[in-house]
Amino acid sequence: MKYKKIGDIYVIRLYKNEKIIETLIKFLEENKIPAAYLTAIGAVSEAELAHYDLGKKEYSYKTFKKPLEIISLIGNAALFNGKPMIHAHVSLSDDKMKVFGGHLKEATVSATCEVVLRAFDEKVARKEDLKIGLKLLDI
Amino acid sequence: MKYKKIGDIYVIRLYKNEKIIETLIKFLEENKIPAAYLTAIGAVSEAELAHYDLGKKEYSYKTFKKPLEIISLIGNAALFNGKPMIHAHVSLSDDKMKVFGGHLKEATVSATCEVVLRAFDEKVARKEDLKIGLKLLDI
Amino acid sequence: MKYKKIGDIYVIRLYKNEKIIETLIKFLEENKIPAAYLTAIGAVSEAELAHYDLGKKEYSYKTFKKPLEIISLIGNAALFNGKPMIHAHVSLSDDKMKVFGGHLKEATVSATCEVVLRAFDEKVARKEDLKIGLKLLDI
Repeated sequence: MKYKKIGDIYVIRLYKNEKIIETLIKFLEENKIPAAYLTAIGAVSEAELAHYDLGKKEYSYKTFKKPLEIISLIGNAALFNGKPMIHAHVSLSDDKMKVFGGHLKEATVSATCEVVLRAFDEKVARKEDLKIGLKLLDI
Repeated sequence: MKYKKIGDIYVIRLYKNEKIIETLIKFLEENKIPAAYLTAIGAVSEAELAHYDLGKKEYSYKTFKKPLEIISLIGNAALFNGKPMIHAHVSLSDDKMKVFGGHLKEATVSATCEVVLRAFDEKVARKEDLKIGLKLLDI
Repeated sequence: MKYKKIGDIYVIRLYKNEKIIETLIKFLEENKIPAAYLTAIGAVSEAELAHYDLGKKEYSYKTFKKPLEIISLIGNAALFNGKPMIHAHVSLSDDKMKVFGGHLKEATVSATCEVVLRAFDEKVARKEDLKIGLKLLDI
């Protein structure tokens, strides 16, 4: 990955075979960014998506292994136990332009992934919500 | 709902059973925000989507009542007759990661809904466009 | 098209029959904006989407000619050979709320298209990447 900082904006390019969430977490840690908002477009060769079952309080997962465009990736970054955590949802399209989507667990970049991230200069925290079963924004 | 203001950004958390559009309109009124840009991710238990028929000049509606992730919610806020109005489009995914989408009339939060809203400090107005049949940006 | 500038944000309204990419490129040139981030919602009567085949290093295209809502349009603007280039991905929904998506080659506005563009005050460049076969961010 490489990035260019323009004021409070980071334009980030991820490279082939880089994992999106893993790479962005490392970027947030290295740049000491406590909170952010981000979107991305690009393409992936593999993606693990999730859907949350509020009754069971657990995610179900589905892995897609084929060339997919990232149609929309919208997410935010906040701190959970002092460490950056990214919450992102994604829609992906195949070569028939059919669209899948879900909570993004992880995805592997193919051609490219272009992220625009706006860093916030104040902390936003997440906290485990036992009733919902998720680490939710603690604001 | 709760929110944290960081400069011109509001990070907003909606709670279970809150209606997204209704809650955000109230937020805009209370904070006297004349215009804004917003995105959101999260999950809903119910959503009413619409598709506009430009020939008939009317929306057709469809209601989804099942656990759905908000994959993308992109919208803006402007003033119509001096009152805040939100125009937002949304894509939602079910437990098979299948995606639906449309103009968002209203939706009810399930697990959570995380909105990032950038407030503008100038007015943006909407005006009824009789030829199109919609309240369009009057800029 | 018409627009209103609020600080570093441009709220842009495209009119019926305007081509989205063509119109935005002209806007960027006229306003001498070297780089930007943008999102949009609205509706189109026609759209040409693409999916990239990294093995063949070429796009496959599909044209949709029917009333479609723009559910999400996420993109960025950068300079290629000194001229503005827009890279955008889009999801579109039909009257059944079914969603299609892909790399946006071009689309023709029907009812309206509302773009929020954040201009950057520094250059971001693109460069042909021969290994990938695309004009990628050169940062």
